[in-house]
Amino acid sequence: MRIGELSHRAELPIPTIKFYLREGLLPPGRSVREGRQLYYDERHLSRLALIRTLTVLGGMSLASVRTVVRALDDGGTRTADLSAVINDAMATEDTGVPAVVGNRDVAARVDALVDHLGWRVDPDSPGRHTLARVLAALEQHAGVEVGALMPYAAMAMSLSTMEAAGLPPRLESEADAVAVVAQIVLLDAALLALRRLAREHLGQAGGSGRGERP
Amino acid sequence: MRIGELSHRAELPIPTIKFYLREGLLPPGRSVREGRQLYYDERHLSRLALIRTLTVLGGMSLASVRTVVRALDDGGTRTADLSAVINDAMATEDTGVPAVVGNRDVAARVDALVDHLGWRVDPDSPGRHTLARVLAALEQHAGVEVGALMPYAAMAMSLSTMEAAGLPPRLESEADAVAVVAQIVLLDAALLALRRLAREHLGQAGGSGRGERP
Repeated sequence: MRIGELSHRAELPIPTIKFYLREGLLPPGRSVREGRQLYYDERHLSRLALIRTLTVLGGMSLASVRTVVRALDDGGTRTADLSAVINDAMATEDTGVPAVVGNRDVAARVDALVDHLGWRVDPDSPGRHTLARVLAALEQHAGVEVGALMPYAAMAMSLSTMEAAGLPPRLESEADAVAVVAQIVLLDAALLALRRLAREHLGQAGGSGRGERP
Repeated sequence: MRIGELSHRAELPIPTIKFYLREGLLPPGRSVREGRQLYYDERHLSRLALIRTLTVLGGMSLASVRTVVRALDDGGTRTADLSAVINDAMATEDTGVPAVVGNRDVAARVDALVDHLGWRVDPDSPGRHTLARVLAALEQHAGVEVGALMPYAAMAMSLSTMEAAGLPPRLESEADAVAVVAQIVLLDAALLALRRLAREHLGQAGGSGRGERP
């Protein structure tokens, strides 16, 4: 298909598609009629849907999308390798958070938590740094201490174990790879949406701001 | 303190603080010396820390931050009311997601899930719409069906019930209100960070891309 049809089917403006092509997020079209026209196929369409999923639902920056897309294009076949790339890309989204006062102590508390859980995690893992910043803010604003995170850690591990068991150890096709990317990004988004719905239900039950019980 | 000291202590540039003042996110300074100088206090400092928490760690847009800050300034005293405002503000972050093909069917599946769970949630709740969009993408890219969300729903409710029990029913001070806002926004962020760490641990155990086992 030509770029106009790709734009129509992907529901994205042509300039956006051209931007993704320039940025190398989308592979170039097939050149026909001695280079006077470029043709695109279903792979371009599914790649565009994936980019939209990563940016809009996954909240990823274009830099992180580029990392994930490169990992897809490199065509490694181990699911764990691709998972690690996506995992790090998601965690590096918030490296812009400025260091907080007392951050070193908070980092030590996070390290102790991870040790206590028995999790084997890189000392420089972006997730570790993110958790330290979040914990610092929790302590400062809400008086929440590190021990309060234990049930969250238990549920995080329980869900991640279940998900890992459902993934094939090796990627047989681009569709497999896309499924792994989408699952990791989207199940987090689903969990957050369910958290909001659960909170709304509990607020309603207790008489919330929606006015069911005055 | 004057704006220079506020900027120094908040670790934010003066133009950013002036922008928040113009936008009404920060209350005006106290005017002294016949209006020739403006003075700020600890409340401005803690408000700036809160704005940074909401935007950077919570990923909120300025529009949502404004909604939350207005709710704080209105000084309602019911925790459930403030929770509902924050909950909706978080969920409306992703209304920019374009409708997906077959979205109506997906919405019906989400409604059936919520009914099955017995959750009392507004038919127009932003969380419901978000979940429909996420589910559509999960189905499309990862072949994940609505039933696979049940364990996520159970854990979401379990954590939210625990959190709601820990909150006071009434807000006695601005600090109480800030704690509620911070807790809701930050515990989600903590949960995601823990999910990433859990995923990394499982990847390491299986021999991930970090190279511990070649």
